[in-house]
Amino acid sequence: MRILGVDPGLTRCGLGVIDAAHVSRPGLVAVDVVRTPADASVDVRLGELADRFEVWLDDHRPDVVAIERVFARSDVSTIMGTAQASGLTMGLAARRGIPVSMHTPSEVKKAISGNGRADKKQMTHMVTRILRLETAPRPADAADALALAICHLWRGAGGGASTPGAAKDVLARRAAGRQGAGLTRAQEQWAQALRTGRR
Amino acid sequence: MRILGVDPGLTRCGLGVIDAAHVSRPGLVAVDVVRTPADASVDVRLGELADRFEVWLDDHRPDVVAIERVFARSDVSTIMGTAQASGLTMGLAARRGIPVSMHTPSEVKKAISGNGRADKKQMTHMVTRILRLETAPRPADAADALALAICHLWRGAGGGASTPGAAKDVLARRAAGRQGAGLTRAQEQWAQALRTGRR
Repeated sequence: MRILGVDPGLTRCGLGVIDAAHVSRPGLVAVDVVRTPADASVDVRLGELADRFEVWLDDHRPDVVAIERVFARSDVSTIMGTAQASGLTMGLAARRGIPVSMHTPSEVKKAISGNGRADKKQMTHMVTRILRLETAPRPADAADALALAICHLWRGAGGGASTPGAAKDVLARRAAGRQGAGLTRAQEQWAQALRTGRR
Repeated sequence: MRILGVDPGLTRCGLGVIDAAHVSRPGLVAVDVVRTPADASVDVRLGELADRFEVWLDDHRPDVVAIERVFARSDVSTIMGTAQASGLTMGLAARRGIPVSMHTPSEVKKAISGNGRADKKQMTHMVTRILRLETAPRPADAADALALAICHLWRGAGGGASTPGAAKDVLARRAAGRQGAGLTRAQEQWAQALRTGRR
């Protein structure tokens, strides 16, 4: 299964693709941040984002798109661009018949780190470990997009009620594996990172 | 100039096209409301809206798209679908190189009726008169889309600071015309409607 994670935004829209032949061992395919010029009008920025996003759909042919669910915050003006960018990317994916799943920031944080209130540093750390990357994805929006994709893999579509605590389960399986056939170095790192992330 | 007005929404998205060979005498080209099923997921609804909207762009080839500017209200949840639908339609228009202009509801009301707080009934009444229609566009979202297109015609792009009080100006010209060569019956009706709308 190939998953495209989207951290929607006008100034920076994070895009991250993972392949998950094995649920517990997702691999990085591509990650980037699409930026649109702040001095351009909103419609022009959305048009550019549409073009760039469709190139990603063409190039990577994801089986599913995981997008951050935009939520009410105190200042509506700050989320308008996010809502517009999410609506655009959702519509473009859906019209191709690609399933779209939505995950809230706290769902993503909990799935990746075990802590629904993990900070950006911690999330980037976890994503780097989970995907066995040599360097952390930058900026944070890139890591967020990958985190969304991983979250979808572990929680499943529609809120993941069927797989609560997926990260914990994976950790438990890995811990059990270590007592048996042993973990790879990467798996070791990840299990360690999960524990670190929980502190 | 051909203008496509968009009253964005997921449940009902109003679309209205006017032709304006003469600024003071816009004509109806097409009007409809795109509905998407409330029991479908947001992404599927946005995908359907994208398809339907692009058919309108293909069929009517507007020179400009006028979209309602979504504003902060007390309850963010009520505007999320509107923001997503507006982001989608703005992006789809802009990527074709079609200019997009945004107008707030009160700007539209003021341009059409002279009253920034006109109610839906009054707005529908005015749109019907301005476009010389035999029956009022229904539902209100259809009339709103046409009102947006007319507003753009009279206010111009980018807030219309260059043409404040356009409706008033047109009315004044019409009134002057009546004293000279006289108005057509439709123009009479419209001038009458403008006055009624102001009460």
